[in-house]
Amino acid sequence: MDASSQRLKNAIIENFGTPCPVIDLDVVERNIERVQRLCDEAGIANRPHIKTHKSPLLAKMQIEAGAKGITCQKLGEAEVMADAGITDIVIATNLLGAARSGRLAALQRRVGLKVCADNPVTLSHYAQAAAQAERKMDVIIECDTGQKRAGVETPGEALALAQIIRDDPNLNFVGILFYPSLDGWEHTQTFFDALTEGLHELGMQATIVSTGGSPNLVNLGKLKGATEHRAGTCIFNDLMMINAGVATQEDCAFQIYSSVVSRAGEERGILDAGSKTLTSDTGGLEGYGRIIEHPNARIHKFAEEHGFLDLSRCNDKPGVGDIVRVIPNHVCVAVNMVDQLVAVRGDEIVEVIPVAARGRLV
Amino acid sequence: MDASSQRLKNAIIENFGTPCPVIDLDVVERNIERVQRLCDEAGIANRPHIKTHKSPLLAKMQIEAGAKGITCQKLGEAEVMADAGITDIVIATNLLGAARSGRLAALQRRVGLKVCADNPVTLSHYAQAAAQAERKMDVIIECDTGQKRAGVETPGEALALAQIIRDDPNLNFVGILFYPSLDGWEHTQTFFDALTEGLHELGMQATIVSTGGSPNLVNLGKLKGATEHRAGTCIFNDLMMINAGVATQEDCAFQIYSSVVSRAGEERGILDAGSKTLTSDTGGLEGYGRIIEHPNARIHKFAEEHGFLDLSRCNDKPGVGDIVRVIPNHVCVAVNMVDQLVAVRGDEIVEVIPVAARGRLV
Repeated sequence: MDASSQRLKNAIIENFGTPCPVIDLDVVERNIERVQRLCDEAGIANRPHIKTHKSPLLAKMQIEAGAKGITCQKLGEAEVMADAGITDIVIATNLLGAARSGRLAALQRRVGLKVCADNPVTLSHYAQAAAQAERKMDVIIECDTGQKRAGVETPGEALALAQIIRDDPNLNFVGILFYPSLDGWEHTQTFFDALTEGLHELGMQATIVSTGGSPNLVNLGKLKGATEHRAGTCIFNDLMMINAGVATQEDCAFQIYSSVVSRAGEERGILDAGSKTLTSDTGGLEGYGRIIEHPNARIHKFAEEHGFLDLSRCNDKPGVGDIVRVIPNHVCVAVNMVDQLVAVRGDEIVEVIPVAARGRLV
Repeated sequence: MDASSQRLKNAIIENFGTPCPVIDLDVVERNIERVQRLCDEAGIANRPHIKTHKSPLLAKMQIEAGAKGITCQKLGEAEVMADAGITDIVIATNLLGAARSGRLAALQRRVGLKVCADNPVTLSHYAQAAAQAERKMDVIIECDTGQKRAGVETPGEALALAQIIRDDPNLNFVGILFYPSLDGWEHTQTFFDALTEGLHELGMQATIVSTGGSPNLVNLGKLKGATEHRAGTCIFNDLMMINAGVATQEDCAFQIYSSVVSRAGEERGILDAGSKTLTSDTGGLEGYGRIIEHPNARIHKFAEEHGFLDLSRCNDKPGVGDIVRVIPNHVCVAVNMVDQLVAVRGDEIVEVIPVAARGRLV
């Protein structure tokens, strides 16, 4: 490794210790620009999902690059973004806990939100929150086209919800939200077309038609009628994105700097980053992260604060005290473990970015 | 379910929303007393591992019940505990990042720490930190007796480290640390006896001989010569502890209160607690947590903010808006996701306890 990278590693450990979450802002900017360009080329508005970074500073970089607004998964995330002056917000989930705690009404009073629902119970809580806020709430209907996540399973169910929204003086129907699987776009089109026709018969229309997912950036524009896309992970990327073929190692902006703290056995070693740092989320991949300096070292198991290395396939084994950089399998959950990100450009530490919405459970 | 439990659920969601981490202080106290009694009966000092709760308030409850001191896994945990006035602290890991960042020296100046090492590199950083702090550092040698975690693998290696410690004017040898597997106590005894003899020949002696682990509470006192035990999980318990046969469901003090936010399919449902709340750590068990109200509902998969329920074996299926209580597979990593715990006694909310050392990565 070159001397300048070693200088950065030394600066990281002397200023912050290890493990330490680091993002490269040059790579972040490149990733933001790429997604914006892909959306522009497809004629789709970009509404990045901020669950990946949970940081108003990074959300503003996305908006400055051309994003129309943002997507959140938690009311707490939206609160933090609204505090920072971001107001065009879709919250892409049924918000029951937030509605019943009064926090949805409080934020709705400040910022007109676009919220999602897939059932009448959620709608009735939205109507109550809107009434309490004295501000009509924009509602998007979440539809499932095969992933078996949230979302109604048929156009008929979506139409039933659309009518409840239309008939409620506190709610305003604004659109439809999909998360197609990689090969589920044809089915999504069929669903969307039937739903659009049904809405037309009701004299209604979706002004927002949202698709989602970073791996789905390869499918941008495939749904005729889509108006916007929400992608999160692609601002940082990770091993899942490399595995999906939508990023290379050079596109991975987030790394955990970690010390090798033990080499108690000939063929094994221990990092000071375990399940409380990198998380046990494998993202369906084998092992727990890639060590840039030792790609043949395998993080095969975690204790809470330790990553256990199998070095048997490693010719150049790391020694105790070495600092290594780990790309996580799934960056969204790794960022969610930390309160701040150390931002670098090349080999210089340039700032510390708070993960401001982390820990907002509701 | 009885009306009083429903009242508590309503109070939780109205005051905090969902998901919400809740601990029952009556159960916590019972668990603390039980472990203290087991240690007393075995004639072993109790040094609970606070990585499970990361809260000075709960650590003080353990000390008031009779614990000699505490065990930490991070310097940051020790900093928070020292700030709260707790001074008898073992940090049970090789602290390289903390040493090189200067934070180990800073805390050592305030509180004489007992730190662990399994290699000479760590010892040399400890010596530097002690010199910087102008205070000799107590060192415990971590030994591995079969788990293949941290720790030297032979008494000979331990003796070599003991001599380095003895010969360093800034270090002070105080003991040995083991984490035997459930069936590894015989081997641990052999290791310990050989090491003790070797130390004796060097004119040295271990004043601390530490064993560890909540499942190992059934083995307390089995190591002749042990002076103290460190157990973490048993303050709250979880499905892993139930599975290990050392706790029942009634001993599980920590639960995530979660709303059912979707029932998009007949046989499935969705909770508002996903991998960012309960974590993907299965602890080697099947599924992700037990729903107290619906033990036959299976949390079979996570999205970041969603827990996906398989309700096919559930006669009494939960409805949208129901609030359920989830016992996690592994409580230590679940507590580590949250900034505070809502403490209840019976059906009353009594206080909010900060998870003060959460997020201290180093």
